[in-house]
Amino acid sequence: MKHMLTVVKAGGRLVEDDDARRAVLDLLLRFEGPLVFVHGGGAMASALSRRLGIEPRMHQGRRITDAESLQVAVMVYAGWMNKRLVAELQARRRPAIGLSGADLDLIRCRRRPVGEVDWGFVGDIEAVQVEALQPLLGAGITPVVCAITHDGRGQLLNTNADTIAAAMATAFRQTTPLPVRLVYLLDRPGVLRNAEDDRSIVPLLSPADYEALNDSGAIHTGMRPKLHNAFAALQAGVDEVWLGNPDSIAAGRATRLVQSVTASTAAP
Amino acid sequence: MKHMLTVVKAGGRLVEDDDARRAVLDLLLRFEGPLVFVHGGGAMASALSRRLGIEPRMHQGRRITDAESLQVAVMVYAGWMNKRLVAELQARRRPAIGLSGADLDLIRCRRRPVGEVDWGFVGDIEAVQVEALQPLLGAGITPVVCAITHDGRGQLLNTNADTIAAAMATAFRQTTPLPVRLVYLLDRPGVLRNAEDDRSIVPLLSPADYEALNDSGAIHTGMRPKLHNAFAALQAGVDEVWLGNPDSIAAGRATRLVQSVTASTAAP
Repeated sequence: MKHMLTVVKAGGRLVEDDDARRAVLDLLLRFEGPLVFVHGGGAMASALSRRLGIEPRMHQGRRITDAESLQVAVMVYAGWMNKRLVAELQARRRPAIGLSGADLDLIRCRRRPVGEVDWGFVGDIEAVQVEALQPLLGAGITPVVCAITHDGRGQLLNTNADTIAAAMATAFRQTTPLPVRLVYLLDRPGVLRNAEDDRSIVPLLSPADYEALNDSGAIHTGMRPKLHNAFAALQAGVDEVWLGNPDSIAAGRATRLVQSVTASTAAP
Repeated sequence: MKHMLTVVKAGGRLVEDDDARRAVLDLLLRFEGPLVFVHGGGAMASALSRRLGIEPRMHQGRRITDAESLQVAVMVYAGWMNKRLVAELQARRRPAIGLSGADLDLIRCRRRPVGEVDWGFVGDIEAVQVEALQPLLGAGITPVVCAITHDGRGQLLNTNADTIAAAMATAFRQTTPLPVRLVYLLDRPGVLRNAEDDRSIVPLLSPADYEALNDSGAIHTGMRPKLHNAFAALQAGVDEVWLGNPDSIAAGRATRLVQSVTASTAAP
């Protein structure tokens, strides 16, 4: 693959199921050039919350984070998921380092103001300091970043991993000379015209196509914030934005976002 | 304080209780020169295990780590304790990064062979690569290291935090030109001649003194592995080894280990 700086994001079953995670890690090793891996891990946090008698609360597909849920999220994301991924990358001879947004003051957030919904300890990104990662990337080390951030005053916060990946890709675009690629890994091989048919991948998706697909009901609710983040990164100058599963990404058969579908981008 | 590389270790109530942790963090800021902070956090792991219906098993004051206990240890040590400490250091304007032994392949262990006791997922240290920390230390960043390690083949392991601190101090002594100081923070102001009397601090403790105190019953069981590690670090060339609480360490009134009590070391 072309020499670029790549930010890959995966969550859910892709980082929790052993076979799926193996495919994700194998894909990571295929990218040449500096690599950052951003991960979620929501199902395990929900399961642990339930075992502890804390009922997870969601609003429009996003988690509401009270003090106990924050503790669970930090333990699961920054603890178990993050360190297991790091150990598994090391086992593949890929030097790696697990980070939260508090480490190196990487991602500073402010707690989301209480409006219609009190999101609890959820952080909206204020500043991403990817410069702190340059010495690590320069030494061939892969940062593994979890969806925990901080407010700079000692409070840990929970931030959506898709948003973190887009913000990091955008920040790299603004601070490094390398082109930047952002990859969202999904269970499905791409954005599909027909949710029932894995072969109906949309190869190039423009904002106009997306609106049309959305109106037709082809985009399910959980995908909307992800695509919102993905298009925001593209608008902000990220050079390539892809959505797919490890197989379709490796084969270049996934969905690539474009500003508009023109002759030059539509040609293979 | 003299310009040295300092490794400070704290665990238990010192990192769990909010007031005690504040005193520990304030102490950390007083050391000049490169600083590494190693932490445990046992009581919270035991409490979480109990809430999950996993009864913690101990042998001679050390934890036996089955698969579920390992997961709890990783979540608590590498997750909640580690990231909270990092966020609280950042809030004090001290750049910090939280690490396990898997990150940067910092501490590689082998799973302890099954003998009289099956310790489970407990790692005995094989290699400490403190060289990986030099760029961070050189940039004024404080690594915060938890008691989770790995075997290099993808398995996370639990390793005693006192042992990690001693091994890291020893590895720094062998790889940096700076003198190295190792500080074990305790609840008590030092090693005491009389456990009932906080004023009975032993200012200088030699191996011979330690044996005599141990025979007299003044050293309680939990302190023995710590003192074993502390003396091992001193024998291995670590320049200063101190034991005390944040107040006594800050005041220089804590216990300092010495090879033997001679006129030169006994004089103030």
